[in-house]
Amino acid sequence: MLALSSCTPPPDAPSRPPSGPQSAASPQTTPPTSLLVTGGTIVTMDPAGAILEGGTLLVEGDRIAAVLPTGAPLPPDFPRPSAAATIDATGQLVIPGLVNTHGHAAMSLLRGLADDLPLLTWLKDHIFPAEAALVAPDFVYQGTLLSAVEMLKSGTTTFADMYYFRDEMARAAIDAGIRAVTGPHVIGFPTPDFASPEESLAGAADFMERYRDHPTIVPAVAAHALYTTPLEAVAAAFELAERYDAPFQIHALEDPTENAQSIERSGMGVIDALESIGALRPGTVLAHSVYLTDDEIARIAATGAGMAHNPQSNMKLGVARASPVAQALAAGIPVGLGTDGPASNNDLDLFDEMDAAAKLAKFATGDPSVLPAETVFRMATMGGARVLDLHDRIGSLESGKRADIVLVDTRRAGLTPLYRVYSHLVYAVRGSDVTTVIVNGRIVVRDRQVLTVDEDAVMANAREFATRVRDVVENRGSGN
Amino acid sequence: MLALSSCTPPPDAPSRPPSGPQSAASPQTTPPTSLLVTGGTIVTMDPAGAILEGGTLLVEGDRIAAVLPTGAPLPPDFPRPSAAATIDATGQLVIPGLVNTHGHAAMSLLRGLADDLPLLTWLKDHIFPAEAALVAPDFVYQGTLLSAVEMLKSGTTTFADMYYFRDEMARAAIDAGIRAVTGPHVIGFPTPDFASPEESLAGAADFMERYRDHPTIVPAVAAHALYTTPLEAVAAAFELAERYDAPFQIHALEDPTENAQSIERSGMGVIDALESIGALRPGTVLAHSVYLTDDEIARIAATGAGMAHNPQSNMKLGVARASPVAQALAAGIPVGLGTDGPASNNDLDLFDEMDAAAKLAKFATGDPSVLPAETVFRMATMGGARVLDLHDRIGSLESGKRADIVLVDTRRAGLTPLYRVYSHLVYAVRGSDVTTVIVNGRIVVRDRQVLTVDEDAVMANAREFATRVRDVVENRGSGN
Repeated sequence: MLALSSCTPPPDAPSRPPSGPQSAASPQTTPPTSLLVTGGTIVTMDPAGAILEGGTLLVEGDRIAAVLPTGAPLPPDFPRPSAAATIDATGQLVIPGLVNTHGHAAMSLLRGLADDLPLLTWLKDHIFPAEAALVAPDFVYQGTLLSAVEMLKSGTTTFADMYYFRDEMARAAIDAGIRAVTGPHVIGFPTPDFASPEESLAGAADFMERYRDHPTIVPAVAAHALYTTPLEAVAAAFELAERYDAPFQIHALEDPTENAQSIERSGMGVIDALESIGALRPGTVLAHSVYLTDDEIARIAATGAGMAHNPQSNMKLGVARASPVAQALAAGIPVGLGTDGPASNNDLDLFDEMDAAAKLAKFATGDPSVLPAETVFRMATMGGARVLDLHDRIGSLESGKRADIVLVDTRRAGLTPLYRVYSHLVYAVRGSDVTTVIVNGRIVVRDRQVLTVDEDAVMANAREFATRVRDVVENRGSGN
Repeated sequence: MLALSSCTPPPDAPSRPPSGPQSAASPQTTPPTSLLVTGGTIVTMDPAGAILEGGTLLVEGDRIAAVLPTGAPLPPDFPRPSAAATIDATGQLVIPGLVNTHGHAAMSLLRGLADDLPLLTWLKDHIFPAEAALVAPDFVYQGTLLSAVEMLKSGTTTFADMYYFRDEMARAAIDAGIRAVTGPHVIGFPTPDFASPEESLAGAADFMERYRDHPTIVPAVAAHALYTTPLEAVAAAFELAERYDAPFQIHALEDPTENAQSIERSGMGVIDALESIGALRPGTVLAHSVYLTDDEIARIAATGAGMAHNPQSNMKLGVARASPVAQALAAGIPVGLGTDGPASNNDLDLFDEMDAAAKLAKFATGDPSVLPAETVFRMATMGGARVLDLHDRIGSLESGKRADIVLVDTRRAGLTPLYRVYSHLVYAVRGSDVTTVIVNGRIVVRDRQVLTVDEDAVMANAREFATRVRDVVENRGSGN
């Protein structure tokens, strides 16, 4: 659930220096020439599902150069990495970086401001006023940075995002060193950054152009939803995504009333409307997809469009039905996991989301064998990569893919003994077990510390925003 | 869900030296005379729900001597604690130790052995064979110790347990320094420790007697369930609990077929049968209580008996209905949270359980305002204490209560900013944020390290058992 400040005029907020072509084009810190990850249990998520105990992972530049089984010698031509670039993964699981297919990262600055309320009360009395007064480039930069730190430290290396001030979203992701799928966003009313969908799209091609070859930003286009946005604007946004062969994100059927609202606007239900503009195709992300019929599942499956399943947000907001994940997977729809915004979850830990996804499906069906652990772990890795149409680049540990790698320490009481890797990864590991994170060949978290930004400074900035948020909502009933 | 080795003869397992009266009576390490916890945000959970920012907590011996607001001077007669006994809680939440009202701790040695299976397949192909071959005093001691470490490090200071080999359960809890509600257990067929309920009860009074004045063991009696145990045996177990004014634990209505099975055995449904023997009273723990009618809720409420709600176990095992928690609370039934056994969860983190309890209730009712964060946090503290009839001793930070205190560090990106304490505690904090744990006035975890036992040695022992477990089940289809 993305909160929408429909009442908000574009604020005259102080702006940071814009992230122009220069910033977008400036290379990230040069990755080490080579990296070695040795001694761990490598959970490859390759098509065969290979798990290599004591295997070795070779990284050259931004790519995985090789995945070697126990005892295999290094290739003779592999450049010897420095000691600092040799990572001992003994006692750890080495997994593909997790993929978060849906969220609104900047809302971390509003996390816990209000909960446990009917949706409209939550929005109108708490979130809207705070967003109207405060959402500006700085807010988005700092909120996205805060979330990026949380995501990296809990093993997420790629996240897809829909919010405002796209350049600031991208800049925060670049500064944190996380892979991001983000960009222009349209919605049928004024937002903090643009007065209309047309205005949002007017400069949008420039964003797509600037980031098209960026190593870690995947430029993408989003339309909020068919119940908020005219079909013409959705179509125009999709056209832009098509032109750049980019992911296209849209909220779809999170709420049972969305179809009726879509019909009222365009004469078509959500899936029909998307089909009518050709927007169902690989790389289209249908966020939530709770209220799908069997027929719609079959039709979506035929197109290659994917689902972003957000079990914890759905539960917390009282969406009284579970997404038909097992049916979607059976039909061949790519399915990934999403946390949704941190204000409706309230964390960005995909390990937590996996656990919830597995359990919610069992609860909703009464069948404990639905969505077994391996299936759920695949959703959080290759599944998410397929949803974002990035499966050629990320989602598994295979030679030639981008080096997005996470180490999970299993040496604590709650993870001992270890009988089955996928069971632990889904039901027992939590984000705090992540020790090391590599994105695009660059070590961004080591010994549980983020190396790219100063976490204390990021938190100090967040606390400053919180003071302003409190001022705005103080008299609106938010207690301890 | 407790797995039952109905097929198991009492094994001739090697036994450790028994924990006789001597071990039970031997005092724990002498607690420091006094302790100070300063600078944190004290979440008292007292009847007024007071939250004291920058407050100070004074501990003398095993008790909380005072809870002081910011700036209040120490009482002149309060013995000045040493530097080591002064705990700086700046940036931390100071909360009552969490109370786990239902579990089978020793099953941590079987965690992740098999999941995602229909219940009978899980039991018959995996759990039963492992239990039959291996559950012996050593297994129970090591498994309980392993779980105690996990529980303490994630903020649980009291746990209620039902398993076999009661003396080993108690000894592990004492060695770890955790408060435990545990003791004799009856079930209608041979278990690893006794051939029959009668045999189990024959020496049971001795256990109750030995631990009746123990500082951290609360002797309690358990009967497995009315679908497994003759009503006469349940009644005899309850009589023993009554004689010692002790908690009485029983599985009740986890499964929709339990009533029919109880009627077949005794002519009465579960609640009727318990009422007929007078077993509904304060301190009776009805574990699960999923399939309760409105009438039964009203009748239970009139007796003071409590509910142990296990949302994650219920979900994982495909119990397709949520416990009527909100209705039970409205009727005045004490409700606490439980993790159930680690093999059906698969963790013992009550923060995780709170998050699931809040979300499951919202999902099941479609109402996001059901079970708000403060209500859920109360369930995990005072609610659990009431369920176990220990609310005069534990569950809140109030002068005169036992000093069971947990510090939660909020200085990380995922917990910044902090708008509302209860929201963070339920929706964003996880067990790994716990830094310091005090049980009965004794510091048992500090800087995230357990001080009472050697965690590495506990894990090494657990791995040894796992090798034996793997040998037993190896050819039964458990893969990675």
